[in-house]
Amino acid sequence: MSTVINLENVALLGVVTLAGGYQLGSFAKRVGKRRYQVKLAYPAVTGNKDFELIYRAQQNCLEFYPVFMSAFWISGLFFHQVPTFLAGVGYLYAREKYFTGYTKSAEERLPGFRWSVRCLMALTAMGMFGLANILLKQYAGIDVCDQYLRQYIKF
Amino acid sequence: MSTVINLENVALLGVVTLAGGYQLGSFAKRVGKRRYQVKLAYPAVTGNKDFELIYRAQQNCLEFYPVFMSAFWISGLFFHQVPTFLAGVGYLYAREKYFTGYTKSAEERLPGFRWSVRCLMALTAMGMFGLANILLKQYAGIDVCDQYLRQYIKF
Amino acid sequence: MSTVINLENVALLGVVTLAGGYQLGSFAKRVGKRRYQVKLAYPAVTGNKDFELIYRAQQNCLEFYPVFMSAFWISGLFFHQVPTFLAGVGYLYAREKYFTGYTKSAEERLPGFRWSVRCLMALTAMGMFGLANILLKQYAGIDVCDQYLRQYIKF
Repeated sequence: MSTVINLENVALLGVVTLAGGYQLGSFAKRVGKRRYQVKLAYPAVTGNKDFELIYRAQQNCLEFYPVFMSAFWISGLFFHQVPTFLAGVGYLYAREKYFTGYTKSAEERLPGFRWSVRCLMALTAMGMFGLANILLKQYAGIDVCDQYLRQYIKF
Repeated sequence: MSTVINLENVALLGVVTLAGGYQLGSFAKRVGKRRYQVKLAYPAVTGNKDFELIYRAQQNCLEFYPVFMSAFWISGLFFHQVPTFLAGVGYLYAREKYFTGYTKSAEERLPGFRWSVRCLMALTAMGMFGLANILLKQYAGIDVCDQYLRQYIKF
Repeated sequence: MSTVINLENVALLGVVTLAGGYQLGSFAKRVGKRRYQVKLAYPAVTGNKDFELIYRAQQNCLEFYPVFMSAFWISGLFFHQVPTFLAGVGYLYAREKYFTGYTKSAEERLPGFRWSVRCLMALTAMGMFGLANILLKQYAGIDVCDQYLRQYIKF
């Protein structure tokens, strides 16, 4: 018996992934716009405090994007797509809050950041649980919990 | 009825992904080479105009890589791998053009950049169409278009 | 006949992906801690040599993460998850060595870096072999080697 991945079980993950990519593109666009407003010539990224704030906000979002995507897809594939979808939407909302906060001042980045970390922790916990469940069944023959996997078709 | 993902339906996506990873590695190598040529000591990234240009080129490619990969895989999984493959090859070509252009001057980055954005828009549109199609069928029972999914095996 | 992907064939890849995301999060945390220690105010990233070293170490790990993830998943999906898992663990270990080395001095980053490149080369080679195998069968009808694909269920 094996657990096949089908499109219906990852469609909600697809929505968040596309939205996350769009959000990063939107951050890049806003950084470019700010660069134009403060008249900072390419390729410099320093020399204007306002630009440095928004640039650092974008860089931090980029740094955490692979952390997010890793935990998000592992949670969605090995645990369940619905709670993963909700935590993913929460993460993207927290990052929007973080980004707009950081562009005002370094202190205002904190509330959004803390929420994004909470979402990451939830995703990591769900991913670890799902992985442990599959690996225990596969390598030790122990079936801790099979109920949540009903989203997948069984053969 | 569900739509199982199999390796044959993502093999072309795999080619572009491996090529994209290789391209980023190649950009990193060229940045390292330029650092050596202009005798800029680690860990500094500023202080030499030539190095700053190539470094910024690489950073921008890195910033857009997750945007690209997100849209690329969603389009390839939920729409169809063949047009996705073509748009992906177009994106990588545009990024090569962007990178080599930017290393000459900030203005010469623009043609490659514009093409890369067009490819991203095509991928995002295909991904959104594919996702909408699946989600409408799954949650609203509406089957807009089933033809393009013939690449997937049906049960 | 097609080759369906199931969760059991990617569970070990999931473990490395979650660990890789966790590692990047841990690097980010250590950079934040160093910033606090050397009393460098947000959003600056220059002005303190110690901070610049650890920051550059993190940036390089981030630059290579998409290269790693691309080669890792392609190798794991199209070749086999077990050797891919081992190369992936080797890569993460090498990056840890690289990061802790770089925080001491720019020279001490090299041993870890060299091992990480070797792991990347192994992953890329396995990925290329797996992809070539699938594509030759799919588009040219040539079956070079079908044995290693026994990890996948056949219909």
